[in-house]
Amino acid sequence: MGTTVTLKDDSVGFVETQHFTFAYPPDELKLESGEKIGPVTLAFETYGTLSEAKSNAILIFHALSGDAHAAGFHEGDDNPGWWDNMIGPGKAFDTDKYFVICANVIGGCKGSTGPSSLNPRTHRPYGLDFPVITVRDMVNAQRHLVDHLGINQLLSIAGGSMGGMQVLEWMVSYPERVRSAIPIATAISHSPQQIAFNEVGRQAIMADPLWNGGDYYRGPSPDNGLSVARMVGHITYMSDKSMAEKFGRRFRGSRQFLKFTPDFEIEGYLQHQGNSFVKRFDANSYLYVTKAIDLFDTLAGKKLGEVFKGIDTRVLVIAFKSDWLYPAYQSQEIVKACKLAGLDVTYCDIDSSYGHDAFLLETEEETHLIKYFLKKVSQGELSVDYEI
Amino acid sequence: MGTTVTLKDDSVGFVETQHFTFAYPPDELKLESGEKIGPVTLAFETYGTLSEAKSNAILIFHALSGDAHAAGFHEGDDNPGWWDNMIGPGKAFDTDKYFVICANVIGGCKGSTGPSSLNPRTHRPYGLDFPVITVRDMVNAQRHLVDHLGINQLLSIAGGSMGGMQVLEWMVSYPERVRSAIPIATAISHSPQQIAFNEVGRQAIMADPLWNGGDYYRGPSPDNGLSVARMVGHITYMSDKSMAEKFGRRFRGSRQFLKFTPDFEIEGYLQHQGNSFVKRFDANSYLYVTKAIDLFDTLAGKKLGEVFKGIDTRVLVIAFKSDWLYPAYQSQEIVKACKLAGLDVTYCDIDSSYGHDAFLLETEEETHLIKYFLKKVSQGELSVDYEI
Repeated sequence: MGTTVTLKDDSVGFVETQHFTFAYPPDELKLESGEKIGPVTLAFETYGTLSEAKSNAILIFHALSGDAHAAGFHEGDDNPGWWDNMIGPGKAFDTDKYFVICANVIGGCKGSTGPSSLNPRTHRPYGLDFPVITVRDMVNAQRHLVDHLGINQLLSIAGGSMGGMQVLEWMVSYPERVRSAIPIATAISHSPQQIAFNEVGRQAIMADPLWNGGDYYRGPSPDNGLSVARMVGHITYMSDKSMAEKFGRRFRGSRQFLKFTPDFEIEGYLQHQGNSFVKRFDANSYLYVTKAIDLFDTLAGKKLGEVFKGIDTRVLVIAFKSDWLYPAYQSQEIVKACKLAGLDVTYCDIDSSYGHDAFLLETEEETHLIKYFLKKVSQGELSVDYEI
Repeated sequence: MGTTVTLKDDSVGFVETQHFTFAYPPDELKLESGEKIGPVTLAFETYGTLSEAKSNAILIFHALSGDAHAAGFHEGDDNPGWWDNMIGPGKAFDTDKYFVICANVIGGCKGSTGPSSLNPRTHRPYGLDFPVITVRDMVNAQRHLVDHLGINQLLSIAGGSMGGMQVLEWMVSYPERVRSAIPIATAISHSPQQIAFNEVGRQAIMADPLWNGGDYYRGPSPDNGLSVARMVGHITYMSDKSMAEKFGRRFRGSRQFLKFTPDFEIEGYLQHQGNSFVKRFDANSYLYVTKAIDLFDTLAGKKLGEVFKGIDTRVLVIAFKSDWLYPAYQSQEIVKACKLAGLDVTYCDIDSSYGHDAFLLETEEETHLIKYFLKKVSQGELSVDYEI
């Protein structure tokens, strides 16, 4: 064991995931469905130092398959956190200035309470006894963490994809607790096409006999189903163009008439993505978290101008031209909702060929936008705390 | 039993599927893979009357899940053929003027030889003993049928999606046997994104334990896997916009927190499509036919200008603006290849919100374009045969 990582100057270094447990019965967390759950544990990490005034905290949200490990390295692991190129000294979320927090969502399987956690009532994994959760429930759980950390108001909140939904949900649920917000490659409500892709993934999992109605924790997991679900996901994360650039029609070997092992590089890539995903993700969590995304609807019958009414949050909306899973028109809808509510909103549609994955890859452009945005947000009240 | 169909004046009426068997051993059909197969049966239908000069024949090609039954009604069945609104007296493919032929592809499961057919060597269904087939193999088999019908030159060939690939393959394989060609919503070679969607469907089928390595004909079929494959397909056949218009975010019932039966109308629609597909399609055929599509590459390392070099076919290329599975740029590539080879080519990008399905739905626009095109093609040599 031991790591071979050489830390660069702009790395947050070695980090550890922490755990915060709350909502012990009878003070269970009430969910949007009406059901209750408790105790609830959130896995989280922090980077940088909270200022004395506790005014420099930024909450980061991960996407569907992410976790609390957003930056730096875990001891013995060469792979950095999922947004390491954005969080660190001098980076977009500059840990010399800001105190950055990232928590795993409830319903997940990366240390926060989810369907694979022990149900205190039965002392067995929840499985499908776990209640349906929503993005609002995720946000409510995080609010307990922010309270626990003694932070009254967050300087900013940021995230892409499902992370962006949490940004929007924080804005409407706890407007007084966020000074600024950065929703990236996301939507004000999930579209039927987006629901459809998630539903196919769920059907693939539930079609796997090993899924067994969600009760598989004592035996083999429904890896085949989860793998297919992940493959569908990966297609939607890339663009037609980025696939063409990365794989073209290249064959993996010399033969072209195989029955039916992957002939093409793109097929091998998808299979690899599926196979590696099942080692790190729980199939039931995939069901619960995708359902939370699908239920996400900030609009919910309201007029667009009413969504952010009465809110005073400064907003930076970022979209990517080749993202067809969360197309730019959905980000523009967020911008319009902000404008109709009189919010100070900036919009940028980054010219990228990476598709939806761009929010994890176009770090140079994002850094430029986010650094400047956070600088403007910080100016005034916070200018005493640090040099800008 | 009995049908309640009331025939309209522009219907081809009641039709029957015919069968043509050829390539008896030792004259087996040689396939692109080098393998041989025989005897080969093609299921086909014809509409209209072949002229004495045998110069008014049009060959129509079906898409992935289609069959030989393109128009009219089968006795006892209320549902017309899959392109009935395009084929009939006075319609786009006017059966008062033209002799229209449509055959089920080899590898399929609708009467033509495919993996569910009996292997004459074993007297059991082929299963995975069926050889890998390509679009060229499909076209070579059809050429035997055209020979059998005594037709030297086809007035036109037309089809959408995989049908369009057969159009392009006929153009390059038998250029002297086609006077004109109508490739619709198709591509000159399958892109990695298109391959990826097919591969997910194949993986879903093969992940189903009932698939059993393709040997399931004596037991239950891998319906769960095939259903998931079809659901993926259906998402790609529609557009973001058409899904929003047709389903929006409407719930099926009043409850929203189900685990995990379909909450949304779009989910119910996909499930219905999956469930009904497994009753009419063979899982192994899905593997073979999607693989044929994926292997389709008219370009195959050639320069675009060389694809149709030396060919003298008049071409009408049709694309649809909201088709993101076979985007318009792919049709434009066909147009460019035609122009570079000096072909007389007309291009139309129809403004439709139906996505890829548009080639089956935008019949008014298609009729207008195709009628005029066929009229121009027929003028001159054929003007004696019938009134235009």
